[in-house]
Amino acid sequence: MKLKQLTLAALTLSLASAAFAQVKPEDEIRYRQSVMNVIGRAFGPMGAMAQDKAPFNKDVVVKNTAIVEMMAGLPWNSFAAGTEKGAPTKADMKVWSEGAKFKEAAEKAGKAIAALSAAVKGGADEKALKGAIGDVGKTCKGCHDDFRLKEFRN
Amino acid sequence: MKLKQLTLAALTLSLASAAFAQVKPEDEIRYRQSVMNVIGRAFGPMGAMAQDKAPFNKDVVVKNTAIVEMMAGLPWNSFAAGTEKGAPTKADMKVWSEGAKFKEAAEKAGKAIAALSAAVKGGADEKALKGAIGDVGKTCKGCHDDFRLKEFRN
Repeated sequence: MKLKQLTLAALTLSLASAAFAQVKPEDEIRYRQSVMNVIGRAFGPMGAMAQDKAPFNKDVVVKNTAIVEMMAGLPWNSFAAGTEKGAPTKADMKVWSEGAKFKEAAEKAGKAIAALSAAVKGGADEKALKGAIGDVGKTCKGCHDDFRLKEFRN
Repeated sequence: MKLKQLTLAALTLSLASAAFAQVKPEDEIRYRQSVMNVIGRAFGPMGAMAQDKAPFNKDVVVKNTAIVEMMAGLPWNSFAAGTEKGAPTKADMKVWSEGAKFKEAAEKAGKAIAALSAAVKGGADEKALKGAIGDVGKTCKGCHDDFRLKEFRN
């Protein structure tokens, strides 16, 4: 290897290390799991209402939709290349090998959440809200079915 | 033990089990850690700006303050009695033995966050925003110093 190549290789390695120092895979994994956990805690009671497993409570729907909406955009950057492993994760490797499909699934969830938020803000009735909640639930489940493993992997 | 006492003991146990089934300590621990993680990720860049370690970016302050504000009320119920252990946690046992002091520290953080949010919404200038961010940081640190262990415990 010639000197110039060696220097370039060292520089590349150095830049890669610098990037690694800024974005630690384990931190990204923890963060995306944290966001999903907060979303799940907010969505859970609404999902139960939509399935008539819990009494409808509009105040909870208003409050929790706002939480889900605010969280909805946060996790995706933390699935960047280089975050495939580094801590126990349920993310299927298809997240990275089928990135376009994953992005599409995430966007579908985002649209369903935006529609639920619009329904809440527009004063939709119980039936319409339950329908919008159900639509969000389907996009969550769809993405989880395709891209989330049943067990943690390292 | 008389029959009546036995029945009462069985009922108490049964109710305690039911409560336990609804609120799993490990889920509460995971949830409060998730919320704190999301808060930390949102607050981090603002803290760096307030300490002049990063260039001031008002858009980030607006966006991240909204996240911190929405998260600020969420973790406290998940420090309820019965959630002292069940998963690795950094929560000091003082959270429960000095509950009033913990509550006060949490409320102090809530007030500082509300003040930051008001400053953002009121169009405060860079200096005022940095001051309000610094005030939030102090309340975070104060509570962490008193109630968060340096290492995880079981």
